[in-house]
Amino acid sequence: MGTWRDNVRRVTPYVPGEQPQRPVIKLNTNENPYPPSPAVLAILREMSGKPEAGNRCEAANLRKYPDAEVTELVNAISEVYGFDPAQIFVGVGSDDVLGMVFLTFFNGNAPILFPDVTYSFYDVWAELYRIPYRQIPLDENFRIRTEDYVNHDGPIGGIILANPNAPTSVSLPLSEIRKILDANRDVAVVIDEAYVDFGGESVLPLLAEYDNLLVVQTYSKSRSLAGSRIGFAIGSAEMIKALSDIKYSYNSYTMDSLTIRIGAASMRDTDYWKATCAKIIATREAYRPKLEELGFTILPSSTNFYFATHKSVPAETIFTELKKRDIFVRFWNKPRINNHLRITIGTDAEMDALVAALKEILAAFG
Amino acid sequence: MGTWRDNVRRVTPYVPGEQPQRPVIKLNTNENPYPPSPAVLAILREMSGKPEAGNRCEAANLRKYPDAEVTELVNAISEVYGFDPAQIFVGVGSDDVLGMVFLTFFNGNAPILFPDVTYSFYDVWAELYRIPYRQIPLDENFRIRTEDYVNHDGPIGGIILANPNAPTSVSLPLSEIRKILDANRDVAVVIDEAYVDFGGESVLPLLAEYDNLLVVQTYSKSRSLAGSRIGFAIGSAEMIKALSDIKYSYNSYTMDSLTIRIGAASMRDTDYWKATCAKIIATREAYRPKLEELGFTILPSSTNFYFATHKSVPAETIFTELKKRDIFVRFWNKPRINNHLRITIGTDAEMDALVAALKEILAAFG
Repeated sequence: MGTWRDNVRRVTPYVPGEQPQRPVIKLNTNENPYPPSPAVLAILREMSGKPEAGNRCEAANLRKYPDAEVTELVNAISEVYGFDPAQIFVGVGSDDVLGMVFLTFFNGNAPILFPDVTYSFYDVWAELYRIPYRQIPLDENFRIRTEDYVNHDGPIGGIILANPNAPTSVSLPLSEIRKILDANRDVAVVIDEAYVDFGGESVLPLLAEYDNLLVVQTYSKSRSLAGSRIGFAIGSAEMIKALSDIKYSYNSYTMDSLTIRIGAASMRDTDYWKATCAKIIATREAYRPKLEELGFTILPSSTNFYFATHKSVPAETIFTELKKRDIFVRFWNKPRINNHLRITIGTDAEMDALVAALKEILAAFG
Repeated sequence: MGTWRDNVRRVTPYVPGEQPQRPVIKLNTNENPYPPSPAVLAILREMSGKPEAGNRCEAANLRKYPDAEVTELVNAISEVYGFDPAQIFVGVGSDDVLGMVFLTFFNGNAPILFPDVTYSFYDVWAELYRIPYRQIPLDENFRIRTEDYVNHDGPIGGIILANPNAPTSVSLPLSEIRKILDANRDVAVVIDEAYVDFGGESVLPLLAEYDNLLVVQTYSKSRSLAGSRIGFAIGSAEMIKALSDIKYSYNSYTMDSLTIRIGAASMRDTDYWKATCAKIIATREAYRPKLEELGFTILPSSTNFYFATHKSVPAETIFTELKKRDIFVRFWNKPRINNHLRITIGTDAEMDALVAALKEILAAFG
């Protein structure tokens, strides 16, 4: 006789990421070093106000279900990006959006394509939803080769590309994406632009020409709101309807009422988040030569992180030594990238501390 | 040649629920008529405070990813219910938890069992995850027949029961659930206790005896926090680990930082939500005879709603006429229940308005 364990779905168990409790320099999860827009603080204050003072007291309203269609947030995105609300889909972080995208658009029998080195959840979602997939190797400089996605062998079920790609930080120009789109009008082409606000070229202007193109973005990086879990997709109204049909068919209420308001307010404060991104880009470019001087080779970054390798000291050694000094960066013991580090761009002060620690480490191990 | 549409997963499109913008008496979605604990307001105030004032200023912290393991919230549930944190799983609303439960525990080939009249998402998740299922008819009084789940034909893949059941409001005593558990030690048995705080008998005390039992609860009803999206499961550490492994394998960060704190604070304010439930139960029992006097038959309710039918006027007529008077209740045009209404228990003032409107309608149509 069996037990209930026989019917349990098995997966590779999760290993929690390092979230040290003591204060450290945290350059390991691509969080924004600056706080979110002051508009977020203002919203929190308003929400905690007394209803009789004329405030929109969200605390009392929390007894009600949220607006399932998150209208207020969709409208804010619509205003800022200039697309119709019917072209916008919102999820609880871009992971939620991307998972739903896999479930909705990659339901065919031919394999979907994505790079071998890219966002680590793509193959997870493909496995979860039993979607056949093929991982296309990046070239020796960690670049996407357009021709692999233009002249692929046989039919495919779709394409998903992170642009800029992660953890490589490299971006593909719009003209190259256009070639991929022209060669693949018959399947969904999804561009994951999680890092686009740090210098990438968004594919949003091409939406008018391709009804099979879907663009996914997030609040976690450029909006300093990783803690709020907001992601969104923009595409043709037909694609967005397909996505919404799937989402609402199995879970109607996913984003809480407070987050809807926070998301709308911070989206509208465009000046703030653009200034924040500009600061991060300035830091990124200012510290690149300092790291190169120390013997690092850094890929050209259009993101809020470096993908770097050192000419003589192994990445794993640097990773371990930095951690001993309470500076956390990211290292993967995976084929192709096991001599690279992904280093989030912090404040100038954090980058100074990083450079000082690296000097020490390289002196000892170089 | 095909198009991207060929690979789109098809579902029955969603029809949004009625959420009128003007003020109405809303007795259609089983929301709590009372606001959440004052502790929620206090948390919002603290979060919007200045960091230098010694507050834990969550607005600035929103730049960071939330605690994926929602430790603060898990600990609060652990303290209040007296189970080990390793026995607790938290999700973004109980729909999120239940969907994950279906995905995790119902991965076998034999059909799972649940009633024909029950929470409307059970068959949706079964279809979504391709889980075979059998819907067992409630008896003629809308009661679960224990023997159907004790002496079922052939092997089964699991059982899920809402207790109290919805939309019927009827609860099954613990002794009956025990019989079902004793007959089904080899599959997961899930009890969805969304409404249990309004008078049902929780199966939590049986957890020590059955390692295949999982209990799911929600903040949406008894905690007045439908807007915050918080649900949780309590079970054996082994079941909770299986659930967490699935969850973390495909989406690590789902609950936002603010909701984690709100959930912890309101959980700990036990006196508040118990008093709120007592008020709702008192209203439910006080207005039952008033509706019975008007010719309604009401099932014995252990929830925050009535399931009622009228001796002469069709449910659909009453539903439509109430709506004209800005009172919203729930009606389904579905087999077996298409002459019943589900009426959420509101404040006494709202129930007075309901009774007055019903008198008017029954005078006109009775």
